[in-house]
Amino acid sequence: MQFNQLPNRPLNVAILGSTGAVGSELLKILEARKFPVKELTLLASQRSSGKYQSWKGMNLLVKEVTEHSFSGIDLVFASAGGDISKKWKSTINQEGAILIDNSSAFRLLADVPLVVPEVNPQAARNNYGVIANPNCTTILLTLLLSPLNKISKIKRIIVSTYQSASGAGQLAMEELKSLTQHALNDQYPESKILPYSLAFNLFLHNSTLMQNKYCEEEMKMVNETKKILNSNDLVISPTCVRVPILRAHSEAVNIEFEKPFDLNLAISTLNKSAGIELIDDYSNNRFPMPNDVKGKDLVAIGRIRQDISNPNALEAWLCGDQIRKGAALNAIQIAELLLPK
Amino acid sequence: MQFNQLPNRPLNVAILGSTGAVGSELLKILEARKFPVKELTLLASQRSSGKYQSWKGMNLLVKEVTEHSFSGIDLVFASAGGDISKKWKSTINQEGAILIDNSSAFRLLADVPLVVPEVNPQAARNNYGVIANPNCTTILLTLLLSPLNKISKIKRIIVSTYQSASGAGQLAMEELKSLTQHALNDQYPESKILPYSLAFNLFLHNSTLMQNKYCEEEMKMVNETKKILNSNDLVISPTCVRVPILRAHSEAVNIEFEKPFDLNLAISTLNKSAGIELIDDYSNNRFPMPNDVKGKDLVAIGRIRQDISNPNALEAWLCGDQIRKGAALNAIQIAELLLPK
Repeated sequence: MQFNQLPNRPLNVAILGSTGAVGSELLKILEARKFPVKELTLLASQRSSGKYQSWKGMNLLVKEVTEHSFSGIDLVFASAGGDISKKWKSTINQEGAILIDNSSAFRLLADVPLVVPEVNPQAARNNYGVIANPNCTTILLTLLLSPLNKISKIKRIIVSTYQSASGAGQLAMEELKSLTQHALNDQYPESKILPYSLAFNLFLHNSTLMQNKYCEEEMKMVNETKKILNSNDLVISPTCVRVPILRAHSEAVNIEFEKPFDLNLAISTLNKSAGIELIDDYSNNRFPMPNDVKGKDLVAIGRIRQDISNPNALEAWLCGDQIRKGAALNAIQIAELLLPK
Repeated sequence: MQFNQLPNRPLNVAILGSTGAVGSELLKILEARKFPVKELTLLASQRSSGKYQSWKGMNLLVKEVTEHSFSGIDLVFASAGGDISKKWKSTINQEGAILIDNSSAFRLLADVPLVVPEVNPQAARNNYGVIANPNCTTILLTLLLSPLNKISKIKRIIVSTYQSASGAGQLAMEELKSLTQHALNDQYPESKILPYSLAFNLFLHNSTLMQNKYCEEEMKMVNETKKILNSNDLVISPTCVRVPILRAHSEAVNIEFEKPFDLNLAISTLNKSAGIELIDDYSNNRFPMPNDVKGKDLVAIGRIRQDISNPNALEAWLCGDQIRKGAALNAIQIAELLLPK
């Protein structure tokens, strides 16, 4: 059964994992973007059920997810981890709802579109009930790569990330604040949420290491970027690093094209591309920072320059709100692609 | 007049800029390494003179630097900025003292050795009264590059840095702590020392931008690395970033050799190289962090892996104490090279 689009009426929408960092942001953005919601159902694990979350001036009860939760639902945003998404996918689809999934569970499946609406919106229409929301670092990166790849084919990417605590969830953000307060008082308790303290510290992303000595987060960037750009011969080497920032990711990106490129054309192309804003002010030494983008929709890009070590390569720097464009906003933009015109 | 080495007796040593982050560390390390000091003279600007600093259980008065300050001095460590070093260089040399200079003022001059003792110790002996201490990020990087360059010629480096506040001095470290405390209380006063607040924020290194759109800090890495490794055809593309860390720098380094290389040989070579320790534990997902190296002499290196995007390239990650090996320790190690055997 192929789901092409959502019905042409106010929708019954469910958020699975509504109390997390991304879930809470989904509520805010659904309201701000006037998404056509008839009824909003908030679902979570038993542990988080029974809480209330405010939406459009109402206090909504968070219910425990059960096999009956999806009856009558048109659209589910899931942001409660891959295991939860896998557990409920069939039920969601059997009830006739479309699942927009924020986990990595289905991203690389051939029949699941992996969508960044500014990059590959057409992919969303050919869905079979599940559309995957890419990894946060990948979403931000593809907004930079896609316009450039259209003017000159990209061959190789080397990227170093500066990823905020929010990527590990609300509790990691709270832990960063709490451990930082302790460190300012010269106390150094051990971390409980993240593997090491992020207080005035940073560490390589702690996801599972693969046989090739890259971690899972890095391989997500590799595989998802190739799928979104539909560039199977693109090669990518990422180094993912968690830094003591609350909710915006940054990336230092080296982009090697197949042949020499026109830097001015690259900059002017990025300047008119969707989803991004250039902060590229050499006269004031002013380029993107996490503080520029927190709570914002656009990904900020700057320090775009000719790589002095390779005539075919360009260096750039980007910052984007991890919870917003890196997760919740992108998911809702995917849903908007499925609304009848 | 060529100065080859220091005299064979306890030395009269001066520290110019003794009250700064690097100056204070110089005092500690001179004591800890039992450097042969007869008398230690502490010098600073008028603003900082009159303070006392403790050394070997004594309270030493910090004096204002004047044209008479260097009479009878054998060795001067300068860490008060390039203008101060330029101002006093001739006086220091006329008094027969050797200047080991932490600023960038003389680093690229042909007759000034630029020395990392584990890398190019022989360069120190051919000095004409001035030896330059390299930029902090460069010192750390060359400890990784030099052993690898000996087993297979390095062609190109792409490096992204994660630089601590200490690189901008003691006041920047204090500002990071103070603005972070404010941010935890939901207050966001403007920064006064650094151009933007580092509290849960980061930004591209704010040194002067060059015509080629790289900043001065980045070009220091390019030019100094080539000089220290004596590799004029090496090409390097750095992106330098200031992060909310107090005193250790990290670097994500992509190293492209001229031809395919042996990863195991690279790792075993680094494992026995001077000045570094490997933290490269894949079974425990444990790699270097700033917290591992603060106050330590060794630079920690890990996540050494075959670059999946290029058969000739290797990826690595390093962390080093910016004030110690990145500045004060390296300066004192240079002086030790000049002591009679």
